[in-house]
Amino acid sequence: MTIRVAVNGIGTVGKRVAHAVTLQKDMKLVAICTRSPSPVIRTVLEPNGPLYGTDLYASDKEHLKMMKDAGMIVNGTLEDMLGRGDIDVIVDCTPGGVGEKNKPIYEKFKLKQIYEGGEKASVADVSFTAVANYEKALNVNSVRVVSCNTTSLVRTLWTIDTNFGVKEAFAALARRAADPPEDKKGPINAIVPSLSVPSHHAPDVQTVLPHLKIMSLAVVVPTTLAHVHMVEVTLKKKVSREKVLEAFNEATRILLFKGKEGYSSTASIIEKFRDLCRPRYDMYEVGVWEETVDVKGNKLYWIHMVHQESIIIPENIDAIRAITGEETDKWKSIEKTNKSLGILK
Amino acid sequence: MTIRVAVNGIGTVGKRVAHAVTLQKDMKLVAICTRSPSPVIRTVLEPNGPLYGTDLYASDKEHLKMMKDAGMIVNGTLEDMLGRGDIDVIVDCTPGGVGEKNKPIYEKFKLKQIYEGGEKASVADVSFTAVANYEKALNVNSVRVVSCNTTSLVRTLWTIDTNFGVKEAFAALARRAADPPEDKKGPINAIVPSLSVPSHHAPDVQTVLPHLKIMSLAVVVPTTLAHVHMVEVTLKKKVSREKVLEAFNEATRILLFKGKEGYSSTASIIEKFRDLCRPRYDMYEVGVWEETVDVKGNKLYWIHMVHQESIIIPENIDAIRAITGEETDKWKSIEKTNKSLGILK
Amino acid sequence: MTIRVAVNGIGTVGKRVAHAVTLQKDMKLVAICTRSPSPVIRTVLEPNGPLYGTDLYASDKEHLKMMKDAGMIVNGTLEDMLGRGDIDVIVDCTPGGVGEKNKPIYEKFKLKQIYEGGEKASVADVSFTAVANYEKALNVNSVRVVSCNTTSLVRTLWTIDTNFGVKEAFAALARRAADPPEDKKGPINAIVPSLSVPSHHAPDVQTVLPHLKIMSLAVVVPTTLAHVHMVEVTLKKKVSREKVLEAFNEATRILLFKGKEGYSSTASIIEKFRDLCRPRYDMYEVGVWEETVDVKGNKLYWIHMVHQESIIIPENIDAIRAITGEETDKWKSIEKTNKSLGILK
Amino acid sequence: MTIRVAVNGIGTVGKRVAHAVTLQKDMKLVAICTRSPSPVIRTVLEPNGPLYGTDLYASDKEHLKMMKDAGMIVNGTLEDMLGRGDIDVIVDCTPGGVGEKNKPIYEKFKLKQIYEGGEKASVADVSFTAVANYEKALNVNSVRVVSCNTTSLVRTLWTIDTNFGVKEAFAALARRAADPPEDKKGPINAIVPSLSVPSHHAPDVQTVLPHLKIMSLAVVVPTTLAHVHMVEVTLKKKVSREKVLEAFNEATRILLFKGKEGYSSTASIIEKFRDLCRPRYDMYEVGVWEETVDVKGNKLYWIHMVHQESIIIPENIDAIRAITGEETDKWKSIEKTNKSLGILK
Repeated sequence: MTIRVAVNGIGTVGKRVAHAVTLQKDMKLVAICTRSPSPVIRTVLEPNGPLYGTDLYASDKEHLKMMKDAGMIVNGTLEDMLGRGDIDVIVDCTPGGVGEKNKPIYEKFKLKQIYEGGEKASVADVSFTAVANYEKALNVNSVRVVSCNTTSLVRTLWTIDTNFGVKEAFAALARRAADPPEDKKGPINAIVPSLSVPSHHAPDVQTVLPHLKIMSLAVVVPTTLAHVHMVEVTLKKKVSREKVLEAFNEATRILLFKGKEGYSSTASIIEKFRDLCRPRYDMYEVGVWEETVDVKGNKLYWIHMVHQESIIIPENIDAIRAITGEETDKWKSIEKTNKSLGILK
Repeated sequence: MTIRVAVNGIGTVGKRVAHAVTLQKDMKLVAICTRSPSPVIRTVLEPNGPLYGTDLYASDKEHLKMMKDAGMIVNGTLEDMLGRGDIDVIVDCTPGGVGEKNKPIYEKFKLKQIYEGGEKASVADVSFTAVANYEKALNVNSVRVVSCNTTSLVRTLWTIDTNFGVKEAFAALARRAADPPEDKKGPINAIVPSLSVPSHHAPDVQTVLPHLKIMSLAVVVPTTLAHVHMVEVTLKKKVSREKVLEAFNEATRILLFKGKEGYSSTASIIEKFRDLCRPRYDMYEVGVWEETVDVKGNKLYWIHMVHQESIIIPENIDAIRAITGEETDKWKSIEKTNKSLGILK
Repeated sequence: MTIRVAVNGIGTVGKRVAHAVTLQKDMKLVAICTRSPSPVIRTVLEPNGPLYGTDLYASDKEHLKMMKDAGMIVNGTLEDMLGRGDIDVIVDCTPGGVGEKNKPIYEKFKLKQIYEGGEKASVADVSFTAVANYEKALNVNSVRVVSCNTTSLVRTLWTIDTNFGVKEAFAALARRAADPPEDKKGPINAIVPSLSVPSHHAPDVQTVLPHLKIMSLAVVVPTTLAHVHMVEVTLKKKVSREKVLEAFNEATRILLFKGKEGYSSTASIIEKFRDLCRPRYDMYEVGVWEETVDVKGNKLYWIHMVHQESIIIPENIDAIRAITGEETDKWKSIEKTNKSLGILK
Repeated sequence: MTIRVAVNGIGTVGKRVAHAVTLQKDMKLVAICTRSPSPVIRTVLEPNGPLYGTDLYASDKEHLKMMKDAGMIVNGTLEDMLGRGDIDVIVDCTPGGVGEKNKPIYEKFKLKQIYEGGEKASVADVSFTAVANYEKALNVNSVRVVSCNTTSLVRTLWTIDTNFGVKEAFAALARRAADPPEDKKGPINAIVPSLSVPSHHAPDVQTVLPHLKIMSLAVVVPTTLAHVHMVEVTLKKKVSREKVLEAFNEATRILLFKGKEGYSSTASIIEKFRDLCRPRYDMYEVGVWEETVDVKGNKLYWIHMVHQESIIIPENIDAIRAITGEETDKWKSIEKTNKSLGILK
């Protein structure tokens, strides 16, 4: 059966989820809903845009008018879209906190719901990262795909924990300050610490991996391309560096990069995905610098990068399959998603 | 007849020219040559890379060894490539100044040559921008495609000059300091003036438009995405703002963007080309901010942006057609190139 | 007679004006007024801060409470300050537009008023730059010191116009996007064009030099240190480059820097003022790169930098002297101000 | 007795050390030596520069000629300076690695030597941070003042270790990529990981605190103002957050900043030191964000910032006193240094 999907909110995440849905053999993008006649929505609906021909809706009557006044063809409001009768799953990609407000409407129409990491964990039955807890999301009513930083930590820590056992972990994050198209946000020349200890990332990892002991600190730095995490893991037992590299190599959606081969920075790694002609240079994989993977006694260290705009896209696709129960095998869903998006492993 | 093309130098420009050649119905990419086992060359030759399967050569014996030692499959040296016998045109995309040194070898093998804007004008028979002087490049032995900044100025000024007559022009450039993958170059927080008056851009425009009176000043600013030019043109006769907008709208490879619609910066415009899923988000068009096009008395003003990495790619393709004489009609070549690269007008 | 000065608004400009007033032999800083217990106000009033011991007031009762609650010693509200009876001149350094709202209160207390460039020209009797129109500000009721960019253009263009005659001028501005301590404003990696033609700078120059024909365009770039202007002047008669350099050399508050000697950028010039141990590295002078001063036919070119935080401070001091009529000789006031601030010429 | 000091190398560190020496009652700056007629050396020797009147030498005959040709008054070469007979201590502030080459010359002239953190630890008898091991440097022949990052870690960790006992520590560094005046170094928009595990900082801390168990990872980020460290300490016994804050509050050269009071970033903290009119806004203290100091079980966390250009200046002054034995009491030397530089505690 084809899963019929609608996306509410066409921003950084929503435009990517919608596009990714169109690339799945077992899914169909039915409709999209957004708030305003933004450059994004205009572009993706252009004849050579990736969502050309998709039915468009506005979040409410006010925005319906605004978008029509701007010359756009709009089929109705969010409620009109939800009431079409041909939607199985709604993916809510609205700004953080709005999803919670939308939840009653989705429930009124008895739709399966996917939320993003900007929402509180309580918005959904399950907080989700495919490798870690796909099965828990099978046939539930709502799933929350955790944020980009959290997803990267869950993928890597789940891999290490499953293979070797994690006693505790500490992640120090250098976060990108704004996404590439945001031209109003700074800082231009400063480092801004997160004032909460832990930063919100460690508790968020625990929404997916509740038994993992983890702490995190974070600073914001003036770059737009990617986050970088410095990770220290106390292992339950000693392992060799080679075993860890092997585990990362065998893991899905984790790539090792050699700094010595020219992958010296987030920028040079992003360039690889431009050179591969990935749409929007999306990098769905966590990128781990191989030289930084090291074991000292019972401690394991590494540094990885996170493409904040796209790492959660494959998780959204897997979440759609899980929530509908159309694919009950985690690894089969992951394989389908990976293949459709050009993820090699 | 299919034009058989080889590319020497697989960096920012070379990888794009080679890829663009593969998208042309009337061309064939025969081989590529590069210096070192860089991330770029590894990536484009991956199974899912855009140049997968292309014959690879090394610039000389020393680099041949270096690349083989790094595990790459290399067919021989530059001379081996040039001597294959199945190449019509060599496109030299080596770093500035190297092309001049390579010229005697190309001539030895009697190949038609395309050079890039980093070379001196004297390297080639013609300095080239398609709309301005395609005909001059017909059947010559060598063509130099001028640099990104120059190409943008030639396209726009040729349009204004042809339509209304340019008495003189002044361009003030805010140049991007480094390309996105370059992580060693700065400045991080400074503006660096070009100390020469004029900056090298105005004289370079005159290599294509020798009768155009033009001056330029330039500063370098800490951004990687695009150059921006502030242009003042003294017109031979008064025209209305509307006529100028019309001329830009009708021109090929020039796009107007409305700041008020959300195209507030180089970043928000670049995002459009990510959203269109252009390979590497390449933006072959000059982007003019519509609100900045204005006429005061006999002076015309505008601000435009230049995607430094890709704007010259369509010009290279047109230059290949012109130099071989395979297409004698400028507009037909431009149309073929545009269609192949997704340029709408 | 000692001129008794109060400053309303202790931000980027206000803290500097207040400090500069304390350095004048013929002035006394009576009191300052601000809105909130910001880091700035706390710091300047510390025992080793430059305004230690100055009477502090709050903008209104609400803010008076807020500041007292934060543990600060506050003497009353703005009205209390204005009604002290020992103030001759109030310098309004509040955010743009607030000065206009404050004007009636200042007038109620019959105080001479200085406003800054964020206000409309209509707020004051005279828009002011010392060299250009000191005399016009003598004994008026209110003066507006024009903004940093405007001040730099008036100083340089007035020098050229006075010496050689300016037929018309064009300035292209690369503006710093935020001041150094601002960590929320961007862009991080973009260039943002000003969409108005002319940008607001050219008309603002004309509030001081009404007969000067000038146009300007502007872009915002991701740096915090200084603005940079690329200027083209059409001269009334031809002059040699040497004569222009001589004129700049003889002008007050204009410094020539040789890029070849290591003054390659805004950053390396700012470093000079750190090395001189200027308070806050303030650079009151316009910095012109000597190599960029050039004459081609009847056109004169140069590139200069503007330290946006401090260039207008000496103008404020001169404006205080002019408005009170305590010093009727422009050059004597300039000399006093320069000496007190360490400006060598 | 007055300690007679010469400084070799007038760059970022040397110019500050030399200036700081002039501010000590018990020291005299005898002479300085540098390589080239840089903007720095010209500026500090200007009539209103901080080193006006100091005898200048050139590193060798070649550079002597270069500087004389550039119009500078130079008294001779490095050897001439060292042979004056009136120098007690030479502070070597040359680029990393050059100090080691200079050592034999200094020894030939039997001078006490201070080196900086760019040198290997083996260059000197003692690697030094004042609070941690002042006594070890008493009357030795050579001292190495450790680098900025190391100094900040030693100050804070020594404080915690002395007060509560440190079992082990982990520091994750977000390093500034270039100093403010450097306009050639990047990255502009990337994060660059240090590929070595540990980064060189942890072993360097151990040159001062040999028994401290510590690991470190580091990334470079596009900012010029300051480094930031995220620190995790495993304590030997549990302590309260309040006790830790108390310890930091009582420690010399450590300042607590409240993010909630407006000290939101490295930039807003640096602005405080501009507002205090510190020369070059030098911040000799480690800045710890108070909200980030937290204890979870037996783990202690905090985030601090390091002004890379100046934090080591007071350590150099103390090292001069220790190496000569002129002041045998650590706390008395620290007090003298602090008072002279405006360090409040």
